[in-house]
Amino acid sequence: MSAKLPEPVQNLIDAFNRLPGIGSKMAGRLTFHLLQKSEYDVNRFITALDGIRTGLQPCEQCGNISDQPLCGVCREPGRSADQICVVEGPLDVIALERTALYHGLYHVLGGVLSPMDGIGPDQLRIQLLQDRLNKRQEIAAHTELIMATNPSLEGEATANYLTQRFQPLVQEKLLTITRIARGLPMGSDIEYADPTTLARALEGRNNL
Amino acid sequence: MSAKLPEPVQNLIDAFNRLPGIGSKMAGRLTFHLLQKSEYDVNRFITALDGIRTGLQPCEQCGNISDQPLCGVCREPGRSADQICVVEGPLDVIALERTALYHGLYHVLGGVLSPMDGIGPDQLRIQLLQDRLNKRQEIAAHTELIMATNPSLEGEATANYLTQRFQPLVQEKLLTITRIARGLPMGSDIEYADPTTLARALEGRNNL
Repeated sequence: MSAKLPEPVQNLIDAFNRLPGIGSKMAGRLTFHLLQKSEYDVNRFITALDGIRTGLQPCEQCGNISDQPLCGVCREPGRSADQICVVEGPLDVIALERTALYHGLYHVLGGVLSPMDGIGPDQLRIQLLQDRLNKRQEIAAHTELIMATNPSLEGEATANYLTQRFQPLVQEKLLTITRIARGLPMGSDIEYADPTTLARALEGRNNL
Repeated sequence: MSAKLPEPVQNLIDAFNRLPGIGSKMAGRLTFHLLQKSEYDVNRFITALDGIRTGLQPCEQCGNISDQPLCGVCREPGRSADQICVVEGPLDVIALERTALYHGLYHVLGGVLSPMDGIGPDQLRIQLLQDRLNKRQEIAAHTELIMATNPSLEGEATANYLTQRFQPLVQEKLLTITRIARGLPMGSDIEYADPTTLARALEGRNNL
């Protein structure tokens, strides 16, 4: 049938299908959903796509996505500059902001170290982080660097690399490096937890 | 954080989020996927969306989506006109064509009877189906009407309604009405089958 679908319909199915996590059936469903919608809805979608084509860049200070030289977080008054939370991407910033618990700044690496994919320190925004820390060193301000890379192999390796790299500042007592806790997710079951998670939960136990 | 995302980014997240089956997390992931893609990919998506805005209409004969007066199936030479498979929407046509087993024509109702939602016979392409059958009656040609509405409450009700409505033609021996088999899906387990499906599988048993 594919060959018998009108070309514009097949084109939109293909466009959806190229997106991650959208299979051909879902692509069909989304396309026919839009076909049933008014032209206004389709136009609004086109306008939204059009909007991301220009004017967006990484924040000069932290690498977060932004439509101004400094991103929304860096511009926000009242964020404490003595905490920098290191994350992989802008979506992690969104997730952490949703907790409404963190009032420091961020540093968005733009990925994780992955030698297999040719991603070394120079492919990430690590020099920019180094520069930020150097600037704070000049004014002898103490900083906490919170490693919030994913609890994956690459995420752990990246956190470890950065911890090594900034050791001199730690020695000078200008920097503390912490790592977000790994353990059992809320609402989960110990009996179903995987051994690695359970091991981390044991290792990371706190006093009550 | 939402408030702190650049407006164009938030707009695209919202646009994806309005689509059925795409939650806010997935919407974010799709948006950042496109942000990382080249402008070429985004342009291609825009072009695809633009393509469905005009020039598409229901097939004059069967109601399937088309960019010409007659849809791809109705135009295809060699399809037997003595079988008409009644489906709810164009996606069902695609699914049935994938079987490569059916060589007749279709009739796309454009939905199912659903009095709760104000959808009666006049809101579906039932008169058009009646006209098709009348035309075949004039040339005294025998037709098989295959009811391939979904095996849901509304789908069954719609198939039953049509069966009632076209009874006169059946009496005249000009029409046979069949219903696609309901039973156990291939690869499933009897022990996990729901009672209704199992009941249908028993009722619809065939001689071996």
